[in-house]
Amino acid sequence: MTRQIRIFAFGGNEVSPVGLTDANGKAIIPDIAMQWSRTFETSKHIARIIEAFPNDSYVLTHGNGPQVGNVLLRSEYSRPILPPLSLDVCGSDTQGSMGYMIAQILGNELTSRNINKHVISIVTQVVVGRDDPGFKNPTKYIGPSYTKEEAMERAQEDGWTVKLYKKDDKGNEIWRKVVPSPVPTDIVEFDLVEAALEQGMIPITVGGGGIPVIKVEPDETGTFKCNYGISYKDGKDAPIYMGVEAVIDKDLASALLGAMLIKRAKERGEDVDVTLTIFTGEDGAKLNYQKPNQVDLRRLTLEEAKRYYNEGHFPAGSMGPKISAIIKFLEAGGKKAYISLTSKYIDTIEGKAGTTIVHE
Amino acid sequence: MTRQIRIFAFGGNEVSPVGLTDANGKAIIPDIAMQWSRTFETSKHIARIIEAFPNDSYVLTHGNGPQVGNVLLRSEYSRPILPPLSLDVCGSDTQGSMGYMIAQILGNELTSRNINKHVISIVTQVVVGRDDPGFKNPTKYIGPSYTKEEAMERAQEDGWTVKLYKKDDKGNEIWRKVVPSPVPTDIVEFDLVEAALEQGMIPITVGGGGIPVIKVEPDETGTFKCNYGISYKDGKDAPIYMGVEAVIDKDLASALLGAMLIKRAKERGEDVDVTLTIFTGEDGAKLNYQKPNQVDLRRLTLEEAKRYYNEGHFPAGSMGPKISAIIKFLEAGGKKAYISLTSKYIDTIEGKAGTTIVHE
Repeated sequence: MTRQIRIFAFGGNEVSPVGLTDANGKAIIPDIAMQWSRTFETSKHIARIIEAFPNDSYVLTHGNGPQVGNVLLRSEYSRPILPPLSLDVCGSDTQGSMGYMIAQILGNELTSRNINKHVISIVTQVVVGRDDPGFKNPTKYIGPSYTKEEAMERAQEDGWTVKLYKKDDKGNEIWRKVVPSPVPTDIVEFDLVEAALEQGMIPITVGGGGIPVIKVEPDETGTFKCNYGISYKDGKDAPIYMGVEAVIDKDLASALLGAMLIKRAKERGEDVDVTLTIFTGEDGAKLNYQKPNQVDLRRLTLEEAKRYYNEGHFPAGSMGPKISAIIKFLEAGGKKAYISLTSKYIDTIEGKAGTTIVHE
Repeated sequence: MTRQIRIFAFGGNEVSPVGLTDANGKAIIPDIAMQWSRTFETSKHIARIIEAFPNDSYVLTHGNGPQVGNVLLRSEYSRPILPPLSLDVCGSDTQGSMGYMIAQILGNELTSRNINKHVISIVTQVVVGRDDPGFKNPTKYIGPSYTKEEAMERAQEDGWTVKLYKKDDKGNEIWRKVVPSPVPTDIVEFDLVEAALEQGMIPITVGGGGIPVIKVEPDETGTFKCNYGISYKDGKDAPIYMGVEAVIDKDLASALLGAMLIKRAKERGEDVDVTLTIFTGEDGAKLNYQKPNQVDLRRLTLEEAKRYYNEGHFPAGSMGPKISAIIKFLEAGGKKAYISLTSKYIDTIEGKAGTTIVHE
């Protein structure tokens, strides 16, 4: 029988409430209680899916946008009393805390339904190319806002790349740090993900897209020079990794995870059916999104998805990267991918909701 | 052949420099660069050990005292702009970041020595008894200092237990939060630790003693009520977990890990030899520590260790808890445990340095 592996990629909306405002319309920053509650709601939907397909394997991934932003903000705000954190370390922090919360709460939900699957969380490094064009032109805004003067100071002191983010109501310039968002090429802890799946566990991995690392190249003396004065001699062919200031798109990392699962299964001669589901706050992809002539896209072939994507139908800040990740997944051998609400997954895979994109 | 599993418990000194001061004798808080460098030094010692015993299995654990203190301090300091974090979540943060740093840097060191072992980090919940006497009388100071007034306010607002910590030079009272340090009874992610060992990997687990959780008991209606308004009905026998405000001694958690490895191996009928090594900044345990008549304790039987411990030879803040954890480990079936410098491990197991405690 073909083994089914379902990859579920949670967006920010699945772990933390998005877009909360108070009575005056001011944005509310979700606290830990709200994050637990929201993750709890999501876990109920996920547990229902697992209940429906108890013999399948599951891998969970998640974004960390708001959470890593908060870690970075606390780190920056606390500079008068404590040394600040680098971005790779901030990302690893969120893998710990979000991994903990999701593992505990989904684990409890499965337990209460008498489903004997263990949800576990793996601290995961994801490799990006050191020559990725993103490093030459960082574009992803991250962390708090600064005046131009403050931003320039950090650029000088800490080697940051900073850019004008926007002007506020009074015309003052708001500057922010920008980092690259390079393409993921490998998952360092992949073998443990597979080992966990072998044991019937549900691994949580590539949280926040993974902790971004590069493979360090040796210099002319054969020395692998890393950050912080650390270096390795006698490096063999196996890679030496080093964290970098970057963020990886969690959907691209999830697509890579799917591609690696397919590739390894093929190498073992195993028949495996891997599907990638990207959960969103919208019930699938649309044409003419939020316009009077908006159309649901229930089912797309890979070719159609590519055409619509290239025609610019999917906004860069929301559906675009998801479709792009799905295209990569299908091109790497995936047969089906979904864009779905967590509450409508079953309807989505039956073609009654969301969007199904097929490689045919 | 008997399988050898070596558990290595890192103290704060192994991952971050301890007791740094500037030219004026003022304490320096180690930054991320110092933490990387220190972890790098430790990794070289560990890699040399693994090189010497390449066929053995290894599990790594670590403390997180300074690190979780910093997470909590940033969280508290940033309260004007962001909601604060609970202690279990702070602990899970440090498992992410410290697990990442140790896994990467020891992994690189092994790679550069052509040792093909994969170091991986598991987010780990550790169960404590909800009836642990520690919950009635919390004694472990944690996080920043407050005035009495501030402390009382947090006690009222956030349900903290606060205590007078000390008076400063001017006689002002310094108050701090206190939390229990309950005894660990189970490791939620233990199966994944075993699966990783099966694969020849080196798992990092129970970081900081583990994220403390309790097994929630159902109320009279059969409902499992957790924090944040979360509850589960229809709970079966399998446990429902909930995070608690506590810290777990990392040596006790490491001893429990060892006991569980021994127990499971026995259940499988497998012959396994598990040793526990607690790394310290001192070359083993001493009698009359730092007195003129100080004596190295090179080799102790379990009975001798218990007698000296009960006689109060080991300070409560340093060697005491380590000896106590080792006693528990040996009583649970462990045959040998060591207290050692990372640089003198081989000498220690040969009886030429450190302290060996044997169950005979």
